Amino acid sequence: MLHFTKMHGLGNDFMVIDLITQQAKITPKLVKQWGNRHTGIGFDQLLIVEPPSRPDVDFCYRIFNADGSEVEQCGNGARCFAKFVRQKRLTHKKNIIVETKSGIIELAIQPDDQVKVNMGRPRFVPKEIPFISEQQQNYYQLLVEEQTIELSSVSMGNPHAVIQVTNLKTAPVQTLGPKIETHPHFPNRVNVGFIQVIDRYNAKLRVWERGAGETQACGTGACAAAAIAIQNGWMDSPVNIQLPGGKLIIEWDNIDNPIFMTGNAVSVYEGKIKL
Amino acid sequence: MLHFTKMHGLGNDFMVIDLITQQAKITPKLVKQWGNRHTGIGFDQLLIVEPPSRPDVDFCYRIFNADGSEVEQCGNGARCFAKFVRQKRLTHKKNIIVETKSGIIELAIQPDDQVKVNMGRPRFVPKEIPFISEQQQNYYQLLVEEQTIELSSVSMGNPHAVIQVTNLKTAPVQTLGPKIETHPHFPNRVNVGFIQVIDRYNAKLRVWERGAGETQACGTGACAAAAIAIQNGWMDSPVNIQLPGGKLIIEWDNIDNPIFMTGNAVSVYEGKIKL
Repeated sequence: MLHFTKMHGLGNDFMVIDLITQQAKITPKLVKQWGNRHTGIGFDQLLIVEPPSRPDVDFCYRIFNADGSEVEQCGNGARCFAKFVRQKRLTHKKNIIVETKSGIIELAIQPDDQVKVNMGRPRFVPKEIPFISEQQQNYYQLLVEEQTIELSSVSMGNPHAVIQVTNLKTAPVQTLGPKIETHPHFPNRVNVGFIQVIDRYNAKLRVWERGAGETQACGTGACAAAAIAIQNGWMDSPVNIQLPGGKLIIEWDNIDNPIFMTGNAVSVYEGKIKL
Repeated sequence: MLHFTKMHGLGNDFMVIDLITQQAKITPKLVKQWGNRHTGIGFDQLLIVEPPSRPDVDFCYRIFNADGSEVEQCGNGARCFAKFVRQKRLTHKKNIIVETKSGIIELAIQPDDQVKVNMGRPRFVPKEIPFISEQQQNYYQLLVEEQTIELSSVSMGNPHAVIQVTNLKTAPVQTLGPKIETHPHFPNRVNVGFIQVIDRYNAKLRVWERGAGETQACGTGACAAAAIAIQNGWMDSPVNIQLPGGKLIIEWDNIDNPIFMTGNAVSVYEGKIKL
């Protein structure tokens, strides 16, 4: 029997498996089977906690989508991961350093039990996103089916496009999202955020996630939107981002500094399943 | 901590709770919370196993939709229930008699581990369905938004309307289903089955379920469709019903006899959740 914990961060839900005290071979077939919400466990992403491969980090973790594909980075998953390793007593530290597919991240348990995540430096260089453009700009014009869309783009370990809208309710998330996601200028596809700025410190956001469609809350999407809002002069740090699933606080002081995301993580139930 | 088992029958999935060896007060609020597939456990129905209220039955069980409303009858749930009480060693019997909101049902574990359910007598009397009609007929004409739909109707403990179609793929399940479900001639609303008869013993079925929309597999819907196919002379018993989620075998010998449904039930995982 393999033990797991079902968790969520703002409704973005995870099956979390400790592969430090347990052993299992996780195949893409198994991930798909577990990911089915009717015949399996059901989750947006599977989160696997592993021992670190180097002495200067505390853990390694890997993230898989329900379709079996591996994900570089997931902000909501990072908060759940931090809560999980503390609850399972895999560490007593309040500041945890972890290795992910997209690099090292730092997690800090806050006094109110929220988790603050160092999400790394936002990267605006097109080649690093990757986004096909001759030069780096704050705004790009993208031709989508004979319509010119103005967007900004950034990497938070994964690629993001951000579009400012005046009314989030009527924003074309479901129609424009998939077209930008698969646009040839984003060779690794892209997450597409639609942001409505309320004032200098408050915004609302809906995100079309690469490979997943519109979600309740995308952590890296919130960071990407805040980074672009600050970079383009629309807003100031700290930025409160209201997503359909709940609120995240994004702090970013300086172009050379990392971005910090603070939010909630919830353990829903403990499970065990036959391998 | 409350222990539960997650099960499914043809993709129709259940959270199953033993309230014989455990105690808990299950409120509609709790059912809704648990039923959320992102922030809770996620299920089509919650199934609660209770001690019997009378000496001639083995168990009592109650079924709740994820919206907190109570359901009279659920064929896939009955098979999961039988598998559950045997796996949890709540009984050693191979033939189990249970009390449900819609009456007594009998369940038999088959040698191949499938579960055969006595689903009771199909009832065609309009008042018992309930369906508003002056007299009982094999076929009724129903006016739905200026379109006349020919359907048959039966109660399997819950109300069913069945429509024969020649091509199930293009059948108007999503458009016509909700309109018939809420038609004023069905005062308690109705489940709507669309059946394509292949030959005397094989048919395909899609069901629009009352309060749930189109589902992978509706057990009482399969019984209702088979009862009508036999009653109307389209098919002969035993009837193999192919649903999107899998296959069910329906046997019905005689108008005065009960209908029997045989199919699979699967335990997916064991869970525990804080109350």
